[in-house]
Amino acid sequence: MYVFGVASLLMLPLCGAIVISPPGLTAQRSSFSAKLRNDLSASLTENQVVVFDVLLNNVNGNYDVNTGRFNANINGTYVFYLSLMSKNDAANVAFGCLTKNGVEQSCVWSNGNGGHEMSSNTVILDLNSGDYVNVILKAGGNYELHATNGAGYCSFSGFLLYPSQSSMKQLANVLTTLTN
Amino acid sequence: MYVFGVASLLMLPLCGAIVISPPGLTAQRSSFSAKLRNDLSASLTENQVVVFDVLLNNVNGNYDVNTGRFNANINGTYVFYLSLMSKNDAANVAFGCLTKNGVEQSCVWSNGNGGHEMSSNTVILDLNSGDYVNVILKAGGNYELHATNGAGYCSFSGFLLYPSQSSMKQLANVLTTLTN
Amino acid sequence: MYVFGVASLLMLPLCGAIVISPPGLTAQRSSFSAKLRNDLSASLTENQVVVFDVLLNNVNGNYDVNTGRFNANINGTYVFYLSLMSKNDAANVAFGCLTKNGVEQSCVWSNGNGGHEMSSNTVILDLNSGDYVNVILKAGGNYELHATNGAGYCSFSGFLLYPSQSSMKQLANVLTTLTN
Repeated sequence: MYVFGVASLLMLPLCGAIVISPPGLTAQRSSFSAKLRNDLSASLTENQVVVFDVLLNNVNGNYDVNTGRFNANINGTYVFYLSLMSKNDAANVAFGCLTKNGVEQSCVWSNGNGGHEMSSNTVILDLNSGDYVNVILKAGGNYELHATNGAGYCSFSGFLLYPSQSSMKQLANVLTTLTN
Repeated sequence: MYVFGVASLLMLPLCGAIVISPPGLTAQRSSFSAKLRNDLSASLTENQVVVFDVLLNNVNGNYDVNTGRFNANINGTYVFYLSLMSKNDAANVAFGCLTKNGVEQSCVWSNGNGGHEMSSNTVILDLNSGDYVNVILKAGGNYELHATNGAGYCSFSGFLLYPSQSSMKQLANVLTTLTN
Repeated sequence: MYVFGVASLLMLPLCGAIVISPPGLTAQRSSFSAKLRNDLSASLTENQVVVFDVLLNNVNGNYDVNTGRFNANINGTYVFYLSLMSKNDAANVAFGCLTKNGVEQSCVWSNGNGGHEMSSNTVILDLNSGDYVNVILKAGGNYELHATNGAGYCSFSGFLLYPSQSSMKQLANVLTTLTN
């Protein structure tokens, strides 16, 4: 998005002033990184969303620390990362899945045999504005996630990799209007 | 690459029309994300490529779902991610390596003692057009990868982080020609 | 940053020549990827920095292979990735944390029960020029990291995702000056 700010500054001495709105400058970036503060134990009869409640980064504010949802408002290609740690407990697991609008995309799984275990995964997804991504623990399992007061063993992060062409054109049209 | 589409739209009211070709707009992005659908068992006397056959993302189409190869056609810096899960089987392992043109860069390793285990790794590499990246299971090992019908425990993803200067200049020259 | 090179080339036939300095062209990208060459054993009474000494990538040269530090010189949002592998040894662990200026952000932990184990994590952080990110083994623990001559099981990578607005404007101002 800095294309616009930069282009305008470059053009000042060349082609006349262009007014760039700060929203325009920031509209095409989005990233977040959150971790779980407290251990989570659950015996589930239905899917449960994991709310990663310690915020490390939230560029554009698309991650909702109260619901655990990343709510996209820019069409484009995104990268998401999930890490979960099990407790030292053979009977329960750390089993979670990244979902797009509630539909599982990729999962991680650890049990606690022989000590805590961490599992991680990454997925790249195309999202439209209004789509959301979150992490669920699946119904039917006994879960124990190990967090150790925000050590970050259980984390959820993501970022906008490429805004879509339509998304860029919408912004460009707004900026073009501003320059008339 | 959207630089061009945006710059052209910004310049319309300033410096006259610029024709931007859609290929020009999309030539500077590339990403993919794939996961393994079925369990894979192998006792190998030579390296075997893992073909991640469930496609989640393939911007610019550089990942070949039939061969498991990411074939770069843009010079630049790329990020790659690998995750593998072992079966619940102490005798076999999930041991794979990210390669650049067949040369190992970084590996993951899990055994099945005490249950399935996931291992993940990330590497950042400079690639030229014509280079490829894939995942191999190494000769001499007994392997069992656990996939659970595409749950995504075994996944391979990557994206173009920074197009090279030469790559950008080639595209810029094409666009400059279009504007004459 | 290629915005500038591109914009200038596009403007050549339109608005007169712009001189772009190569430093200006490269100032807004930074990435690195490093792995540990040799096994590391330590019984620590104070934190110890892990020096990932096999360099796979170092765009902009911000990672110091001698100290294990990523030294940011661009304000912006960065993505960092850590992976560690334990030895096959129940008594010791692979326990490391990503720090920002020495302050823990997120950790990974593996023990060696039942064989080597890998753990990975990702974090996204806003950094200012002068901030650093590194990986520490924490005081009080007995550690054994398994590296197998640079197989990459222990790795540390990162990249600049979004340069900050102020960072972009500084560069734009430099370039604007060049065009007067």
